[in-house]
Amino acid sequence: MQVAKHLQQIQPSYIREILAAATSEGVISLAGGLPAPERFPLSLMKDGIAQLSKDPALFQYGETAGYRPLLAYLEQHYQLASTHKMLVCTGSQQGLDLIARTFLNPGDGVAMEAPCYPGALQVFAMAQASIQSVQQHADGPNLQALESRFASGRIKIFYAVPDFHNPTGICWTLEKRKKVAALCRQYRIGLVEDAPYRELRFAGSELPMVSSFCPERSLVLRSFSKILTPGIRLGVLSGPKDWLTPLITVKQASDLHSSLPMQSLLLKLIAHPEFPAHIEQLCQLYSERYQALASALSEYLGEGFDFAPVRGGMFVWLKLPNLDPLTVAKTAISRGVAVVPSTVFYHNCTSPDSALRLNFSHEHSETLREAVRRLASVLA
Amino acid sequence: MQVAKHLQQIQPSYIREILAAATSEGVISLAGGLPAPERFPLSLMKDGIAQLSKDPALFQYGETAGYRPLLAYLEQHYQLASTHKMLVCTGSQQGLDLIARTFLNPGDGVAMEAPCYPGALQVFAMAQASIQSVQQHADGPNLQALESRFASGRIKIFYAVPDFHNPTGICWTLEKRKKVAALCRQYRIGLVEDAPYRELRFAGSELPMVSSFCPERSLVLRSFSKILTPGIRLGVLSGPKDWLTPLITVKQASDLHSSLPMQSLLLKLIAHPEFPAHIEQLCQLYSERYQALASALSEYLGEGFDFAPVRGGMFVWLKLPNLDPLTVAKTAISRGVAVVPSTVFYHNCTSPDSALRLNFSHEHSETLREAVRRLASVLA
Repeated sequence: MQVAKHLQQIQPSYIREILAAATSEGVISLAGGLPAPERFPLSLMKDGIAQLSKDPALFQYGETAGYRPLLAYLEQHYQLASTHKMLVCTGSQQGLDLIARTFLNPGDGVAMEAPCYPGALQVFAMAQASIQSVQQHADGPNLQALESRFASGRIKIFYAVPDFHNPTGICWTLEKRKKVAALCRQYRIGLVEDAPYRELRFAGSELPMVSSFCPERSLVLRSFSKILTPGIRLGVLSGPKDWLTPLITVKQASDLHSSLPMQSLLLKLIAHPEFPAHIEQLCQLYSERYQALASALSEYLGEGFDFAPVRGGMFVWLKLPNLDPLTVAKTAISRGVAVVPSTVFYHNCTSPDSALRLNFSHEHSETLREAVRRLASVLA
Repeated sequence: MQVAKHLQQIQPSYIREILAAATSEGVISLAGGLPAPERFPLSLMKDGIAQLSKDPALFQYGETAGYRPLLAYLEQHYQLASTHKMLVCTGSQQGLDLIARTFLNPGDGVAMEAPCYPGALQVFAMAQASIQSVQQHADGPNLQALESRFASGRIKIFYAVPDFHNPTGICWTLEKRKKVAALCRQYRIGLVEDAPYRELRFAGSELPMVSSFCPERSLVLRSFSKILTPGIRLGVLSGPKDWLTPLITVKQASDLHSSLPMQSLLLKLIAHPEFPAHIEQLCQLYSERYQALASALSEYLGEGFDFAPVRGGMFVWLKLPNLDPLTVAKTAISRGVAVVPSTVFYHNCTSPDSALRLNFSHEHSETLREAVRRLASVLA
């Protein structure tokens, strides 16, 4: 059968496609957004896992919105407003896909930061949205450009990753957060705040979420993939009740509900007394690895290879002087280091920035140094 | 935000909406398609569950197509052709949704049996398909009507549940299977064979799948919800490789992949030496419950309340003489028994059949008899 017309241009994700090559023997991968497997909280989940087989209710069909005890816990944990509601998703990726399917007509405008998360580009392209890029500054999106997009009257949704942005690692300032929220209110834009890296802060102080300044115009996506484990495929989507109702209907048609044993396990993990210490240790580890990567980059790379320091998350955005990022990435993989070229983070694969995204969460510090040595030999 | 235009008519599933009422105290539910929880293979999965926390790889990101050892097992188990491929889905419901999203343009024709599974109606309505109903006979779909639909040139997909159909329990004859497959070949229709109840046979002999007579034109959906447990949300979709490739891309954008610990657990269950015995016992139990329901229906209901005997599955289709099925269903719930009115199984909620779907898999035999007594008081 021929695929649907609007899908004929959709490409599989570069990052997921190279996963095989990136995980092949001898290749150090700084390409994925993989958390450190040695920090998966297996010891914290051991009891929770053992108890699963004692509760038959977890193996029956469940409610689409999610496992009630988990929802109750999360609503309190995130201090959800009484006018808001939550939906458990098969990863925050599904939450994003549900948002696009529920609210977007073909041609509806979606503003996105440039560069941005390719998985979001893919979702909005599948929904046939008109993607409007807004350039990112060191403190968040270019406000003038954003307002002019909003003022055009053609934007329905603004998708943003304000905390430790993927791919750049940028964290918006407080001032920018407030201003973006004010613009969303003024122009009645739906803000989709994607916050998978928010808890992975290893320097500076936490800032309020952008959505906290415009809750009635916001949908928030949270992921448990980066702070706990991606394999369980769980995230949560929250927002105003009347926005959540149709989202739940679309989720129902999509997959009825997400795995109940995994939702029960997630509850046991986040309610575990050692959960806060787990996050602290994870941030400590990522801080060390970031320091290792950053110092190796400074040590082994010459002039013109710049990167902005980050205070959390998983990524460093390394700018390349006068080099084609795709060629660099391809050469690098043949020299045993996988990285992601900036092209994949831009709509239509145009890349005003020539850069590479480097992940520092997955590999040990010494391996990160070796990866940079290999990369330096490509860039030399 | 306003929901997308094509979703403004979509209603949440009647069955899932009444789940709360149907599970409230004192109500006997014959409404859902719930398997018997006392037969969830908890003892078979105990070791598998305990081992989960020993394998960190299950908690990392995985491949979109599925957990490789599971795929390898299933390919052999179902004797998949070398030209075919499999994709693990978050329940077969997701497989169906992925098919609709991948292959259907708005307005594309989808032929469906009438009555049919409401979750499929919902998926195809969301994809803005033009749904073309084909009446069901006791041995399968009306072939003349089916061929005239196919000959119109406007049908891309034929969605069918040939084994113990939901809601009618009908099982197509061998002859009908061959003829439908021949028509799919002749008119180049994509057959979607949904087989969640196939293994739940308690009388007669297994027949070849319809897709086995036209494998190059078929996508097959299998579910582990009815034979093992629905809570883990796993199903598998198979078909020609070039049809699976775009499906995997759409799955990737939808949720990256399905839960890996659950996929590993599923593998341990289906590869367990006691798995065949588990299925046998399940069929035995459902046979007993079906006998209890069928004899109570004959005993307590008067003339004109007919049903065709079934040889497997989970449902009996009880025809009502000159009664509005929705009114009957609503009155029944107030008298402590939940059933599903025939209207929800027809496109546009028109119902040429006045009937009720009665589930016999979830309740004990004695409870089924009590449910029929209550129903009889409504129907008197």
